Amino acid sequence: MRAGIIAIGDEVVSGDVIDTNTLYISRKLTISGYTVELRLQVPDQQESIIRALDYSLPRVDLLIITGGLGPTGDDITTCVVAEYLGFGCRQSEKGYMLLEGAEEIENDVGMIPGMLIRVDNSELLLMPGVPEEMRNIFDRFISRTSASSKPHLTFRTCGITERMLHEILSSVFQDLKGFHFYPSWRGVDLKIMPDNQEEIQNIRERVIEVIGDYVYAEEDIEIEEVVGEMMRREGFTISVAESCTGGLVESLITDVPGSSDYFMGGITAYSNDAKIKLLNVLPKNIKNYGAVSERVAEEMAQGVAKVFKTDIGISTTGIAGPTGGTPEKPVGLVYMGVHINGETIVERRVFRPPRGRVKIESSTYLLFMLYRRLKRK
Amino acid sequence: MRAGIIAIGDEVVSGDVIDTNTLYISRKLTISGYTVELRLQVPDQQESIIRALDYSLPRVDLLIITGGLGPTGDDITTCVVAEYLGFGCRQSEKGYMLLEGAEEIENDVGMIPGMLIRVDNSELLLMPGVPEEMRNIFDRFISRTSASSKPHLTFRTCGITERMLHEILSSVFQDLKGFHFYPSWRGVDLKIMPDNQEEIQNIRERVIEVIGDYVYAEEDIEIEEVVGEMMRREGFTISVAESCTGGLVESLITDVPGSSDYFMGGITAYSNDAKIKLLNVLPKNIKNYGAVSERVAEEMAQGVAKVFKTDIGISTTGIAGPTGGTPEKPVGLVYMGVHINGETIVERRVFRPPRGRVKIESSTYLLFMLYRRLKRK
Repeated sequence: MRAGIIAIGDEVVSGDVIDTNTLYISRKLTISGYTVELRLQVPDQQESIIRALDYSLPRVDLLIITGGLGPTGDDITTCVVAEYLGFGCRQSEKGYMLLEGAEEIENDVGMIPGMLIRVDNSELLLMPGVPEEMRNIFDRFISRTSASSKPHLTFRTCGITERMLHEILSSVFQDLKGFHFYPSWRGVDLKIMPDNQEEIQNIRERVIEVIGDYVYAEEDIEIEEVVGEMMRREGFTISVAESCTGGLVESLITDVPGSSDYFMGGITAYSNDAKIKLLNVLPKNIKNYGAVSERVAEEMAQGVAKVFKTDIGISTTGIAGPTGGTPEKPVGLVYMGVHINGETIVERRVFRPPRGRVKIESSTYLLFMLYRRLKRK
Repeated sequence: MRAGIIAIGDEVVSGDVIDTNTLYISRKLTISGYTVELRLQVPDQQESIIRALDYSLPRVDLLIITGGLGPTGDDITTCVVAEYLGFGCRQSEKGYMLLEGAEEIENDVGMIPGMLIRVDNSELLLMPGVPEEMRNIFDRFISRTSASSKPHLTFRTCGITERMLHEILSSVFQDLKGFHFYPSWRGVDLKIMPDNQEEIQNIRERVIEVIGDYVYAEEDIEIEEVVGEMMRREGFTISVAESCTGGLVESLITDVPGSSDYFMGGITAYSNDAKIKLLNVLPKNIKNYGAVSERVAEEMAQGVAKVFKTDIGISTTGIAGPTGGTPEKPVGLVYMGVHINGETIVERRVFRPPRGRVKIESSTYLLFMLYRRLKRK
């Protein structure tokens, strides 16, 4: 099955906005067994959209169109597509346009639904361009096509680079055909679509054998959901002490619905004063080892667990950058602590700038440390 | 001048690789005064490339092609383009293919040069797909073009919907041609590119007159950078007390390099216990008004400023969902407090689920409240 994607928007073609939609859709289509034959981005102009349809429609079985469905004057996608296909187009009560004859696909997080229509031998799906809304609709759509979905393996990893994964797996498998690597600041995801479906369990076992230490999930689920579920199962509570991650660890944990069952709270202590006063870090340890040190990370994790009376306390202290680095303590250096029921471990890692990347990578890695500790139990 | 971009590669269309080249090129073209008319990604297949050229070439003055120039068997771009245009194609000494008649543009960081050729009324530039090499060549190419940067207006807004903005502006301007709305969960950005450049100051003044209350910046800068700069200028320090936003406000503030100059820290108090013990919220107020109330938001903002000894304390308490809502206090309800030097204001707003959206919208709105307060001063 051949698929195409058209993203519509002046802000997309100009580069004002990063077109994350096309990437998201093409990955999901690939994983579901489609061959992506073309991806196209064009401005919000009638002629551009018509030519894009002329070019794309004859060449694909499924055409995904995003953007330009809103209620404002420059959002013309629905009516241009309707006219092109010979369907009607009318205004909904809420102001946006509806493609007549289309099946509506629910949008839980916004106003405008997805619209699915069959033309000749192709299916055409229109979705709004707001990424969260598009994903909500597209996930629902693609899960229905599961009949055609190609069985595959998913491994979500943390703490290892794409290059290392590639090297290790190359030494075990003859070739890496059907292996797809998706690196991000939160880790590397590996998806494997074997040609021979009977091999799938065998492949899974061999992968786990060599890279299992870095895998925290075999489905599309975030690390904060994984550790949240583990803590819920054990009846554990958690609190967080942050310095360089500045609240991000807490924010990730609280992204999970129901996290208030195990997350009691956190303290972001940017200043030394706050570390001492609120987290009971000893002044002499800051003086002797520095605020960015193994010892301070340890005391922060222990201190926050005491303040919030939780079973678990976790901590970060480091140098997010861009300034503040020294030869011994470079930008990107982070100490991360995990304290569970009396035992504390600290790891030291140097993450790669810029600042935002250091924050995300170290926050994710801390949650991965927690995962490993909870798994050992 | 109209421009188009074609990125060629199986790994690009499948989403295995993030196509940073297209984004880079489209931004530089836009800034240089080109109108990007289309961006296209297709696989390494002769037929796909030919159809892409058929579609693109007649519609642009400049066509940029990246990818598929390497010396390996699946890199067929150069010869397919040469044949399509009626030029020759020969192998270089180093193994890659050369388009005969093309002007070579130097590549400082790799082997394969850029190749520029004129066809009818269009220019066509071929570049390798390795991002560093592409950038090296493209920067050299674009610096030679004399096209000038197009003046435009930018307004970043918060606290108002795209629909409302549209309505207000429609009542003031005859039509909204050249007005572009970019909505996200953090607010709506407005970019205006007037046809008549002499009108630009007049348009700016009229826009500010009607929607100025919602504008926090007239350049591409985030609200946390704007308030950060304001606090730095005033010599103010800040701390944050969060409940439903779970650390996100702190994380946004600390995304800004140098924020440690004014951000002292924060307390995420998910439990009532933590609100009482760490933020000095009065138990009777939680009992009488509930943890999600104006009174508690007020005490949280005051309490955190006292704990961290900061000039400013800001707070959130609300119901992020998906559960926990009641008819009087629905999911999405958030009270936000801003306390500056003895004066505290609290706003009540109901944001739209899901959870992630409530967190982002309320965190951003709180920073916008702070912006308004600091501006008044």
